[in-house]
Amino acid sequence: MITLIDLFGVAVFAISGALVAGRKQMDLFGVIVLAIVTGIGGGTLRDLLLGSIPVFWVHDPVYILVAGGAAILTVVSAPFLSHRQNLLLVADAIGLAFFCVLGAAKALEAGTGPLIAMLMGVMTGVVGGLIRDLLAGEVPLVLRRDLYATAAVAGAGLFALLMTLGISPTIAVWVGMLTALALRLAAIRWHWGLPVFRI
Amino acid sequence: MITLIDLFGVAVFAISGALVAGRKQMDLFGVIVLAIVTGIGGGTLRDLLLGSIPVFWVHDPVYILVAGGAAILTVVSAPFLSHRQNLLLVADAIGLAFFCVLGAAKALEAGTGPLIAMLMGVMTGVVGGLIRDLLAGEVPLVLRRDLYATAAVAGAGLFALLMTLGISPTIAVWVGMLTALALRLAAIRWHWGLPVFRI
Amino acid sequence: MITLIDLFGVAVFAISGALVAGRKQMDLFGVIVLAIVTGIGGGTLRDLLLGSIPVFWVHDPVYILVAGGAAILTVVSAPFLSHRQNLLLVADAIGLAFFCVLGAAKALEAGTGPLIAMLMGVMTGVVGGLIRDLLAGEVPLVLRRDLYATAAVAGAGLFALLMTLGISPTIAVWVGMLTALALRLAAIRWHWGLPVFRI
Repeated sequence: MITLIDLFGVAVFAISGALVAGRKQMDLFGVIVLAIVTGIGGGTLRDLLLGSIPVFWVHDPVYILVAGGAAILTVVSAPFLSHRQNLLLVADAIGLAFFCVLGAAKALEAGTGPLIAMLMGVMTGVVGGLIRDLLAGEVPLVLRRDLYATAAVAGAGLFALLMTLGISPTIAVWVGMLTALALRLAAIRWHWGLPVFRI
Repeated sequence: MITLIDLFGVAVFAISGALVAGRKQMDLFGVIVLAIVTGIGGGTLRDLLLGSIPVFWVHDPVYILVAGGAAILTVVSAPFLSHRQNLLLVADAIGLAFFCVLGAAKALEAGTGPLIAMLMGVMTGVVGGLIRDLLAGEVPLVLRRDLYATAAVAGAGLFALLMTLGISPTIAVWVGMLTALALRLAAIRWHWGLPVFRI
Repeated sequence: MITLIDLFGVAVFAISGALVAGRKQMDLFGVIVLAIVTGIGGGTLRDLLLGSIPVFWVHDPVYILVAGGAAILTVVSAPFLSHRQNLLLVADAIGLAFFCVLGAAKALEAGTGPLIAMLMGVMTGVVGGLIRDLLAGEVPLVLRRDLYATAAVAGAGLFALLMTLGISPTIAVWVGMLTALALRLAAIRWHWGLPVFRI
């Protein structure tokens, strides 16, 4: 079950990577690279920083296969996908909610405190998209836009807090995931955003 | 004492990250991310490459707290800071001088030779600012501008050389730090720069 | 012999980094950084992901010296090099062919399956150039252009496949390298490219 949601998140993130590559008119290799990097980038950095090496996908090629497959599906079905923007945004929100809690859980398991666990959760959720934007030559969306990362901060932070307080993991996982999901969906629906800092 | 200077360096670098985020009109999350990345990016890459994992801040959240606190302070006091450019440049020079020697010392401790130690020192000093500029969509300042990195090369190199020659660590640390600091301050004062390579 | 080809690859990649730095009018430090990063970036990421840390150049400064030396040579002989574009492209193709097989071999040695080994081979071959382009403020060439990465995919993939089938390593190495080299040279000669994905 967990693996299924995990792969679902990788696939959704990979699709967003492939779409950005298409917008930038990259070739097929570029599309697959952007899809893979977006799908597994966050978890990879988390594993490197925590010292869980080799990183999670090195001995389990299914992640690469799913991300690559999602890229090829995206190329094949691009006209169809462009009419499904909202569906994609919701799927991406589910992926984000799952990844931020999963990342925080892996950090706690590795013995970090709740603050670093929250940070690792946010990283797992947003770093893939951040590298995607860098490779596409853009200032990362996550640093500029509505409550994307903030949803991950809330979800991962709440999860880490509840776990530290000794609440049952099942409850902590659900509260964290649903918080992140609800915040992200509300931000999409009502265009919520953080204040911008201008100097 | 060492920890205090270390945190001072993280804070100064974090402020420079927050200021760049403000210039790019990022939201509050972007400001905090850029501040944290600028503050701890160099030391993080150094630890990854040396195999000192998990990296230094994973089990000691004070670095993240200091960088995040510096970011929020920067947002609050931005109008004040803009009249303090020179103070910031001097603080940044102290941070650079300290980080380049600290990085080289950690590398020597991990058993590298003096050349690699110098490289790790420079990396500790400049990589945070380099990622900051990448995330802000700019060609990194350190690759284009006056004697910023060169001061780190001189400081870290001299320190590594003296240590290899068996000089007392206290002397090596001070010579390395003061060399880097003097070079950087002189470069700021007289606009020194390296020759540019055009083709 | 292997070390010699290895250093040859590092030097050739470093030259391409120095040339990009020159086109961007970086200073001498920028030139050396871009040369080193381009020369050793791919192998460094490979080692980090496989958990072979410290990475390969930390205890063997010859890689850094060769890359730095190639950078300085490039600056000195830039007018000469501009008339040798084709020679550089061929040398770069040899470097790519060698690196992609070497990377795949190191991954298999670390116990990965053939798919991940192929990925690590491609990464070893192309990530240096990718970071080079990022630092220079450009969308990485390898994501947009002719059969550069595809040659690495074919070479590393064929090598990993043959090794998994139990073919003699000597044969697998040569088949992999020559396939990558032939594809890359043909792509240069006839301007072959992958289809582009536009949305």
